[in-house]
Amino acid sequence: MKWQLDLNCDMGESFGPWIMGNDDGIMPFITSANIACGFHAGDPATMRQTVASAIRHDVALGAHPGLPDLQGFGRRPMTISPQEVFDLVVVQVGSLAAVAASQGARLHHVKAHGALYNMAAGDIKLATAVADAVKSVDDSLILFALAGSHLVEAGRQAGLKVAQEVFADRSYQDNGLLTPRSQEGAMITEVNHAISQVLQMVKEGSVTSLSGKQVPVQADTLCLHGDQPSAVDFALALRDAFQREGIGLQAV
Amino acid sequence: MKWQLDLNCDMGESFGPWIMGNDDGIMPFITSANIACGFHAGDPATMRQTVASAIRHDVALGAHPGLPDLQGFGRRPMTISPQEVFDLVVVQVGSLAAVAASQGARLHHVKAHGALYNMAAGDIKLATAVADAVKSVDDSLILFALAGSHLVEAGRQAGLKVAQEVFADRSYQDNGLLTPRSQEGAMITEVNHAISQVLQMVKEGSVTSLSGKQVPVQADTLCLHGDQPSAVDFALALRDAFQREGIGLQAV
Amino acid sequence: MKWQLDLNCDMGESFGPWIMGNDDGIMPFITSANIACGFHAGDPATMRQTVASAIRHDVALGAHPGLPDLQGFGRRPMTISPQEVFDLVVVQVGSLAAVAASQGARLHHVKAHGALYNMAAGDIKLATAVADAVKSVDDSLILFALAGSHLVEAGRQAGLKVAQEVFADRSYQDNGLLTPRSQEGAMITEVNHAISQVLQMVKEGSVTSLSGKQVPVQADTLCLHGDQPSAVDFALALRDAFQREGIGLQAV
Amino acid sequence: MKWQLDLNCDMGESFGPWIMGNDDGIMPFITSANIACGFHAGDPATMRQTVASAIRHDVALGAHPGLPDLQGFGRRPMTISPQEVFDLVVVQVGSLAAVAASQGARLHHVKAHGALYNMAAGDIKLATAVADAVKSVDDSLILFALAGSHLVEAGRQAGLKVAQEVFADRSYQDNGLLTPRSQEGAMITEVNHAISQVLQMVKEGSVTSLSGKQVPVQADTLCLHGDQPSAVDFALALRDAFQREGIGLQAV
Repeated sequence: MKWQLDLNCDMGESFGPWIMGNDDGIMPFITSANIACGFHAGDPATMRQTVASAIRHDVALGAHPGLPDLQGFGRRPMTISPQEVFDLVVVQVGSLAAVAASQGARLHHVKAHGALYNMAAGDIKLATAVADAVKSVDDSLILFALAGSHLVEAGRQAGLKVAQEVFADRSYQDNGLLTPRSQEGAMITEVNHAISQVLQMVKEGSVTSLSGKQVPVQADTLCLHGDQPSAVDFALALRDAFQREGIGLQAV
Repeated sequence: MKWQLDLNCDMGESFGPWIMGNDDGIMPFITSANIACGFHAGDPATMRQTVASAIRHDVALGAHPGLPDLQGFGRRPMTISPQEVFDLVVVQVGSLAAVAASQGARLHHVKAHGALYNMAAGDIKLATAVADAVKSVDDSLILFALAGSHLVEAGRQAGLKVAQEVFADRSYQDNGLLTPRSQEGAMITEVNHAISQVLQMVKEGSVTSLSGKQVPVQADTLCLHGDQPSAVDFALALRDAFQREGIGLQAV
Repeated sequence: MKWQLDLNCDMGESFGPWIMGNDDGIMPFITSANIACGFHAGDPATMRQTVASAIRHDVALGAHPGLPDLQGFGRRPMTISPQEVFDLVVVQVGSLAAVAASQGARLHHVKAHGALYNMAAGDIKLATAVADAVKSVDDSLILFALAGSHLVEAGRQAGLKVAQEVFADRSYQDNGLLTPRSQEGAMITEVNHAISQVLQMVKEGSVTSLSGKQVPVQADTLCLHGDQPSAVDFALALRDAFQREGIGLQAV
Repeated sequence: MKWQLDLNCDMGESFGPWIMGNDDGIMPFITSANIACGFHAGDPATMRQTVASAIRHDVALGAHPGLPDLQGFGRRPMTISPQEVFDLVVVQVGSLAAVAASQGARLHHVKAHGALYNMAAGDIKLATAVADAVKSVDDSLILFALAGSHLVEAGRQAGLKVAQEVFADRSYQDNGLLTPRSQEGAMITEVNHAISQVLQMVKEGSVTSLSGKQVPVQADTLCLHGDQPSAVDFALALRDAFQREGIGLQAV
């Protein structure tokens, strides 16, 4: 097809006896799974089961490293050094790579989780630490990075293939970055609006900012929020729209 | 040389701000390092530093997976299933493999830690889980296993290269297994006695049991207890004896 | 009323972003809440919210200490010493007591969780450690103990008030103890059968064992399994039966 | 005596098999112990042993709550809400209060640890959360607070008795607060200088700022850094100076 988009989702975020999300419901509809590695969520059994499910559904395997904060689900920013970021990305990518290897598969990408993702997106030193860590473990891995952010820059600088990530349910500013959640208009709640935004991003390489400007954006992969009850419905609506518009869904 | 022995030691058992052992003092004298992977000890920074030190001293890199019990240092037996053992070995081996890869090196072996080691040595199902986990991640890894135990059997069954581990400071029973610590005569505290036992193991392939029998034992690797103040002294005495007797010290 | 029974349930077993059970649905129907203290489940926020809910529903507050094994939910037996048991009961009871105090309330009882409960029920040394720990913190606390087990004995020995706990959905052996789950007939799945067993326990002080004998049993408190979807339905059926039979539901 | 000072020290910061500090060496010389509660350091056994040692040496017992970050030792600032701060202070104070109660003793004070202390000192909302938490558990507890900081204000506002904490080895700014470590002249390394500063604080209620001004400061309790090898020597030198100058050492 003329255009392509990857649809990624955070998966494997259960822990011990606690279930999170609807992995079985969502796995059939996505093309890339970002699988938690035990620091902010996930445990060895959950990692194994999630990798097995992704393989069954031919979904690309990604490591989803996070901050060492299980109770806070890796969402509470912590003051850590680039070296600490490097170290925790290395071990988490490695643990998931081993789970993949133990099932005859290989990792495809790495996407940082929660506060770590946001911290790296906004700080070139932390972004570089993430990219260098990924590179040092396996330079064939693709780095998923917030479109237009320091993570894109750091990934390229490290010589990694980078996939720029966009959001359907978030509005953008004139500078091509997301409108902070604290600002009015940050969230796009209307499904058709969300789908239109994605279609424009993929077909025209641009997004209409909150102020009405056409802003260039590169959309390689779209983040599906699996923790929302409507995730499967949204995935289905997106799939329909893509079919209509001739956009292929596949891993980057 | 005519005979060879590997000298292994548990390393990288510090955690966060807490230092354990004398890794810098011992690293120059050993040939294989069993490096903690964060479950019973170790953390991402300690793993990185320990791998770097082992590389500098040309010491073979081993993963040292343990039970998920930091406070108990992986020494408290837990009732876990073979599947749980498999899973926790996979992720721990993977995390250390990534640390090695990030420094341009590769893992050489795997030795289970503490209660996990003992549980697997005495239970063929758990032993098989350890061996299968190692095999599934990287079938070139060498499995370190208590000489004469189920772990040796399971490793071979899995098609792994197995290194049988012996102890200088523990006496043996007529069946070739260690005298339980609860029994009198279990510990060998006299250095010359300990060294004689090792020499006999290496040169004659046997050990004199507590009851005075000559019992066959295969000594591929000797465990040095790095947490004892006398560890360096013992390593030096051993090295002298080995030089005198024409026994080479090198990784299996 | 002529007879009384307490209905207790494990509560507050969510952790961070992970929800467990149906606390809001069950709280209105029970008389005693056993609230997790952060070792096997629960976290400071969950503890606060659960204590607040129990107070609102006039449910007696209990600490529910468990083994330090979040991933295993405190269900995996660990080899720990009586001293270790004592220590972990003290700190867990204390943390929940403080949450209660911070809301102007007081703890009423302590019930050990999962593997810790079972280990203590079957081992007088561990049972004594639990009882001594509770006694040492606050000797007015009531110890919930498996009917007929070592915990009852240890609690009395320590001078604590003991509430003997019985089960509606488990069959009993001739010795008055539960039929192990591994044996056929261990579980009672039929609701009317379960309710009849409870009525007999309360009104006659006996249970009909699996082999058909009348075995004496003291039923002070009944355990409701809140993690089962039918928990609320069962509580309602029990409440009806109790009303019919003139049995009062109240905390011991 | 005419003047009094309390000498406090962070204690009980070992964890599992890992030893930290020199608690046995320091306990005889201090008047208040701030005892870690398991979140940033400490474990149930260490808490018990440290409380026992403090009781033996007639040292006042304090809870020393920290951030839930064992690997980072509670020194890495985290973005947490006042409610989260409140909750984690409540449970930590409670767990140590129970350890004290189990040995027939009572808590005397609370001092927040590391990043939590600094975060609360500089943010009135977090300071209020700390103070309210302490108040809600036991309003007779004394709040240790950085002299001149928001914690002092919040503690008074909550109706708690507050002990203002000063440092011998840190210089002060014209506003009565510590010179940030990042600035030149922040540390006082010369022992006589450090002791002079303390004497002036106690006897004159003032400190000479880095710029040479006389700045009022209230010195209720002095922090001894137990993790420094020279801690005991400094304590001895201080004790000599206090004897000479007629200053009594005792808990606030």
